[in-house]
Order: sequence, then C-alpha cells, then structure tokens
Amino acid sequence: MEEARNYHMSSKEFRDWGYKTIDWIAEYLEKVEQFPVLSQVKPGEIRAKLPDTPPQQGESFETILKDLDKIIVPGLTHWQSPNFFAFFPGNISAPSILGELISAGLGVQGMLWATSPACTELETHVVDWLVEMLGLPKQFHSSGRGGGVIQDSASSATLVALLAARERATADISQLVAYTSTQAHSAVEKGVKIAGISLDNLRFIEVDDSYAMSPEALKQCIVADINAGLTPFYIAATVGTTSSNAIDPIEQLGAIAKEYKIWLHVDGAMSGTAAICPEFRWIHQGLELADSYCFNPHKWMMTNFDCSCFYVQDSSQLIHALSIMPEFLKNQATESGKVIDYRDWQIPLGRRFRSLKLWFVIRHYGIEGLQHYVRKHVALAQEFANWVESDPDFELVVNPPLNLVCFRHQGSDQINQAILDTLNASGKLYLTSTKLGQKLTLRMSIGQATTERVNIEQAWQLIRKAANCSE
Amino acid sequence: MEEARNYHMSSKEFRDWGYKTIDWIAEYLEKVEQFPVLSQVKPGEIRAKLPDTPPQQGESFETILKDLDKIIVPGLTHWQSPNFFAFFPGNISAPSILGELISAGLGVQGMLWATSPACTELETHVVDWLVEMLGLPKQFHSSGRGGGVIQDSASSATLVALLAARERATADISQLVAYTSTQAHSAVEKGVKIAGISLDNLRFIEVDDSYAMSPEALKQCIVADINAGLTPFYIAATVGTTSSNAIDPIEQLGAIAKEYKIWLHVDGAMSGTAAICPEFRWIHQGLELADSYCFNPHKWMMTNFDCSCFYVQDSSQLIHALSIMPEFLKNQATESGKVIDYRDWQIPLGRRFRSLKLWFVIRHYGIEGLQHYVRKHVALAQEFANWVESDPDFELVVNPPLNLVCFRHQGSDQINQAILDTLNASGKLYLTSTKLGQKLTLRMSIGQATTERVNIEQAWQLIRKAANCSE
Repeated sequence: MEEARNYHMSSKEFRDWGYKTIDWIAEYLEKVEQFPVLSQVKPGEIRAKLPDTPPQQGESFETILKDLDKIIVPGLTHWQSPNFFAFFPGNISAPSILGELISAGLGVQGMLWATSPACTELETHVVDWLVEMLGLPKQFHSSGRGGGVIQDSASSATLVALLAARERATADISQLVAYTSTQAHSAVEKGVKIAGISLDNLRFIEVDDSYAMSPEALKQCIVADINAGLTPFYIAATVGTTSSNAIDPIEQLGAIAKEYKIWLHVDGAMSGTAAICPEFRWIHQGLELADSYCFNPHKWMMTNFDCSCFYVQDSSQLIHALSIMPEFLKNQATESGKVIDYRDWQIPLGRRFRSLKLWFVIRHYGIEGLQHYVRKHVALAQEFANWVESDPDFELVVNPPLNLVCFRHQGSDQINQAILDTLNASGKLYLTSTKLGQKLTLRMSIGQATTERVNIEQAWQLIRKAANCSE
Repeated sequence: MEEARNYHMSSKEFRDWGYKTIDWIAEYLEKVEQFPVLSQVKPGEIRAKLPDTPPQQGESFETILKDLDKIIVPGLTHWQSPNFFAFFPGNISAPSILGELISAGLGVQGMLWATSPACTELETHVVDWLVEMLGLPKQFHSSGRGGGVIQDSASSATLVALLAARERATADISQLVAYTSTQAHSAVEKGVKIAGISLDNLRFIEVDDSYAMSPEALKQCIVADINAGLTPFYIAATVGTTSSNAIDPIEQLGAIAKEYKIWLHVDGAMSGTAAICPEFRWIHQGLELADSYCFNPHKWMMTNFDCSCFYVQDSSQLIHALSIMPEFLKNQATESGKVIDYRDWQIPLGRRFRSLKLWFVIRHYGIEGLQHYVRKHVALAQEFANWVESDPDFELVVNPPLNLVCFRHQGSDQINQAILDTLNASGKLYLTSTKLGQKLTLRMSIGQATTERVNIEQAWQLIRKAANCSE
C-alpha cells in the first residue's frame, strides 16, 4: 500500500469550510434578486471556463469556493429569486436546506427499514401528518391498508401508479387503455411509453372552458373502448394542470372510475399544497374515490427538490408491482413482516433520507406558517389577475383558481412572444408560456418564498412596458 | 391577506443554525464508530417517539436539532461507520457534503439547459472528466455522438438503457427477449417488469466458477430464441456483481452482442470506480463494445448518494426513447439544438444539481487521492482474504477480485446464519450475506472512507469469536 497521505479533510477543516459554505449560501440568498433571473450565458460558455482535464492532485477548498462565484453563478437561472415566475415555483427555505445538510452528513441509505429504521419511520410519520394537514382521505393514512411515500417527482409517482394499475389489470398489455386530459402533464405520456403501452392506447380526453377534463367525454371514450374489446385500466387526473392550473372534477371522474373498475390517479403536484388552507380544500372534492394521489412539497411547501409525496389506498398493489427480493437483501426485519421497505414503493433501489427536510419544514413553520405563504401567494395572484383584467391591452385567458395567472396581450402570438423574449432577456423577471385555445399564453406563476407585492407590481410594470415596445 | 408575521428564518439566524448544524455533523462523524452499526431498535420504536399530530405553530430550531440526537440517531444504521461492511459501501466525504449543501442552498432545478445552464454544463464536463479518469472508451465522451449523465441509481440506469434498447428494436414487445446472468442485480428483473416485458422473456444465463456470465451459454440461448422466432434485444452484463463481485467477460459478451445486434448494457455500479487505478482497468476489457455503461460514485468514490454516472455511445437513441416536448417546456435554447436537456435522459422531469458534489470531490482529492482509497480498500480486502484462507474453520467462496470478500464457516448454513446474527446484534460491525453455490455466504465489503486496518483486524477477531460460540 502506498504511503499514507492526508487526503481526508479533518473535522476542524470541515467545520471551518462548513461555516464558510453556510456564509456563502446566506450571501447568495441575500443578493439573489440582483442577478438576471434567467441566466444570460450562451451554450458552451460555462464549459469553456472549466479546465479540460481533471486535477491529478487535490486543490484547496478555497479555490473551489471561489470558482462557484466565477464559473457557476453566472450560469444559474435563479429559481429562488423573488422575480422567478416561470414554470411552477420550487420554493426552498432555511430549515429545508439544513435538513438536506443533515441528510448529507448522515449519509444513510434507506432502501430497507433495516438500513436505517429512522429513515423509513420518520417518512411514514410525516406523510401521515400531511394526510391530516391537507385533509386528505383517511384511505391514504398508513394506519389502514394504504399509505404514503416520498418519490423524487410527480413524474415518477405517475409512473408507479400506472405500473400498479397495469399489474392489477388482468388483460394483455396490448389491450390496456389509459386516459388523461389534453391538458395533462407530459409525464403521463412518458409513463405510458416507459410501461410498454402503445401510445395508440392513450386517450387525451377533451376539456371544458376551464381546461378541466370533461367527465362526459371520458365516459363516452371508455364505453367506445370497451365496445371495441379493449380494457380501460388507468385514468390520470390533475388538480392544477401545468398549463393553466385547471382542476379536473375528481368526484365525477372518480364515479366513472369506480363504475368501470379503473385505477384513478390524481396528480396534485403543484396545487395540492393549497389544501393546507381549509378554504382551498374544494380542489380535492371526491379524492376518496382515487386509488392514488400525489403532491409536491418541493414546489410550494418550502421544501427542497426532490420531495414528492405519493399515496396509495392499498399499498399491497404497489408492492406487488415493484417488489423483487434477491438473496443479498434478505434480513430479519423484512422477514418479520412488521416493517415497510420503501424500495418496493419506487423505481430505484436506493433512497436518500428525504423526510428529514420535510420534518424540519413542518416543525419550523407549523401548519400556520405554511398556510400563511399559500394565502399570500394566492392573494398576490388574484390581485395581479385584477390588474390584467382592467387593462384594455391584456386579457385573462382563464380565471385563476389559485396562484397561476394565464394571460395574454390582445395582439398576435408574435407580440406575446416578443413580450416574453424581451422580459426574459432583461433578466429582471422570468416568465414562461403555454398554448391555450391555440393561442400563445403567458404564465405568471407566483410561489417563491420571498416574493412580495413589490415584485408583482414591478413585474406588471415591466410587462406593460414590454408590450408598448412590442406593439 | 393576514397580518404579516415573521415565519422566515433571517439570514443571521440561518448562519447561526447553519454553523450549529455543521458542528452537529462534525461531532456525529467524529463519534460514529461508537454507535451500534446496525440500528438495534424494534419496529415502531422511532414512530412511538414522534408526536401524533403535526405542530400548529412553528417550533425553535434548537428543539428540532435536539430531537435529532433523541429520536433519529438511535434509529440509524451507520453507513459511515468504519465498521460498516454490509451490502456495498456508500462512502461520503466532507467536500461531498458541502457540495450537497451548496446544491440545496442554490435550489435550482436542471430539467432543461435553460433552467440553469451551469447545472447541465458542469454535469457534462465532470462525466467527461470521468471518462478520462477511468480510461473509459471514447464513445462515451460527449465530444462524439455519445455522452454521460448523472442518474439517481444504477437501477434507473439499467432501466433507461433497457428502454432505449426496446425502442431501437423493431419487433413487437411480446417478441423481445432480454439476457442477464443468474448473478445480476435485481434491478434487471425490475426494469424488465417496469418496461412491460414479460418475465418469461428474461433469460438468466448460467455462470462459470467465478460466478461470471458464460458467453457460450449466452450464445446458445440467443440462437435458441432466434430459432423460436423471438428477437433478442438487450444484454445486461455486470462488472462486479452484488453477491460476489464477479466480473462478466465484457469482451466476449460484446462480440456476441455485435454479432446479433443486441444492446449491451454494462453495470459497473460498485466496481467501476476501481478503474481509476490503471492496474484495475482490466475489469473494463471490451467495454468499447457496449452500448451503455454505468458506475456509481455514490458507492466507492466518496460522493453522497445519489450519484450514478450513466453513459451511452449514441445519445439520440436514449432521447428518442424518453423525450416528449410539451408546450410549457418550449424555449429558445432547446429550439436552437445547441444544448443538452437532461430531462430527456432520465425517468423524472425534474433534477437536482448533483454534479456540484462530484466536482467538489474530484477537485478536493484529485485523481491521486481517489486512487489512494481504492488501493487501500483492495489491499485490506486481500489481506482479510488471506486470513480467511489460512484459517481451517473458514473458507473463501471465491477469490476476491477487488474489495469484496465472500467467505463462510466450513459448517452448516445454520452456523453461518448464527455467526451473522451474533455479529450484527453486537453492534460492533455490520455484515450481510448472500447465497453462492446454494450455500449461505458471508460478505465482507470494504470501502468506507474511514475504514483502517484496525477495523478489519477487529472484525476478523469478532467473526472468529462468534464462530466459536456458534459451533
């Protein structure tokens, strides 16, 4: 063996560099509003600053930290800027960052209960808490046959729900038909493709004026498929679509699902968090008819990505679809049948200790604190919508149910695209677009932790100014 | 809107609690050897300490940190203990923890190049560095048609490779046949199932005396399937199997794959890291014949879970299998065709800034530092194997190629199980088992960052003592 040399960073050095890293983050978050929200670099610009070859010998941590400012920061799109209004929010918080830090420091891997019981049990506990906090149906609580788990994303939740539904169905895979709305997330199509089901067997059901799935159209389509000898097996409904925040009518869709014995998955990735406020719980009306449900604390609940809470009403169906037990994973606890092994609830085998950050967030803010942010963001969005409505140059494309405002300039798609490009190139805010009713539509998504009324006012001024220059 | 109240943790508070969290981790890692390696709690014991209902109002961070020691630590299995010899290692390091911390603090989401160009470009850059560091074939470098990406796990890498192979094959899904060895990871079977391929169409090829896949048996099986009108489409080979670290003969398997135009995926999750030392590069002999490859820096390269590097020789095949472009993700950069959008290389849509920690690790240790740990662990394993071999009560089950020693007491399976249970219940070390040649076999997996010769000596003493008490 070669001569020992001190490659290990000592405990003292770790503390020193740890404090400096904490300071670096604190400073970054203090000044994040000053950076262009959408990174203004050109393709290849970041790589060009990195050395072609990896270092033969180690470098000092000081050099590494300096390169963060020099190389990395200019290449960031600042999701934590109060002027980030693109896509959906991915709001984070100090307790969540520190929860991630602890998780990294422990370096445990929770694939089995035995590989860190606290990792599994804390996860079951906080996802149960969230059943209560959001007023979700009791079927999703672990005290019965159901329960929850943290997935990396709603895409994965959509996929594992589909896999459980596919295994529950008895027909041949070529006969199975899945349903979702024309407005559903691309994850449904991706999931169907991954699961080996032909895209010819995925139906995009039409929507009503609010862009919510039409139960009548769904039922007609199901009946036609059954008459054609096919087997409907999976409906993916959405509470808060990505394009426009449309709320599919779960109660009516659920009745259809029950009638035809079809798995109903409800994706509340973005909007589910709203249910922490009793006045917004109407979005989940009928959820007791769903076989599975998910929402993402990593979007609107101050929790770092990745953290998507996924619930099933009968966990045995999920485990049946995903469990394979090799010799090298056998252990006493699993064989006792008294524990949950979350590896059987997800695609990968390994898993991080993700419930720590969620536990930290819930305890730091309390239900009250989390309600505060949801109410603030919804109120800001409603105020913004009023400004749009009262401006003759602009129109609301739909009435915003919560915190996403879909609007457009009354002019052509070209004008709207020009407004969007001008705003994003300014670096002063970041907006994205969609198409609704075949027209280019701007999306003002309000949900960053530090977004205040002044940010919304400034955004509206910039939008109107960009419109004046684009007309 | 309700009266503003200060739910936000101030920058100053974040610094204070951040320092204390860093201290907490430093202290945890200093004393990690003192805890029972395998958590000794009973099912439900951790949950019983947690309050039934979530807090209505926020709690102080001090209380939260205290509960870590009181509630969480007793429920941990200590993966970072120098006496953790179970499964495979999941070694971490100070620079990696701080890299995770920065990633959490930035809170960016890298689904598209545009959503943080540095997240994408740094990732491409470090996975390219690793092609050089491990001496991987040039086809996996991004300068050509191929390239790499960070996945959450080797399970996901196995799956996306299989999906790309499935899409490349032109036959109906019911005609496709996949091949792996009897010793392959359960992820292959899980992936086949997820992809909608019947488990009847997965062949477990027999192995030779070293538990490596037999090319002759593979070829016979492929020919028989073709003669039966089926279409072989995917071979999953392993460099370092989970049970025994067996190295499949990639060169011979690759020749067969080329002859029959079958996708060859090589899973080097555990052992791939060894190739950072030129003397161990023989494990990858023939890798230029593979369509895809992965290895996990989160196992043996001092990088926190999750971080699995996955490479393809033609990225367009992967993108073809996984890309779906909805309106709400359209953007100028993607449309220019000049950038990589890594969302099309993986199952989920969202992604964390995982390359930061890997960049930190490579820069802190340099190639030389990472080589040091691999050499140390392999040398310790070889020394341990010598002790086993020279003890009349024990036998080596296979010659250990690298850092995993498979051994057993000469007695019955019951004796070996009793030895295992005694050791794990002692809390002084943690070992897991497998079956090789139908016999229960103990696995001594050496790869934690802080494991030294003294830990191996102590383990061997405890094993012999447990054997004396179990005979």
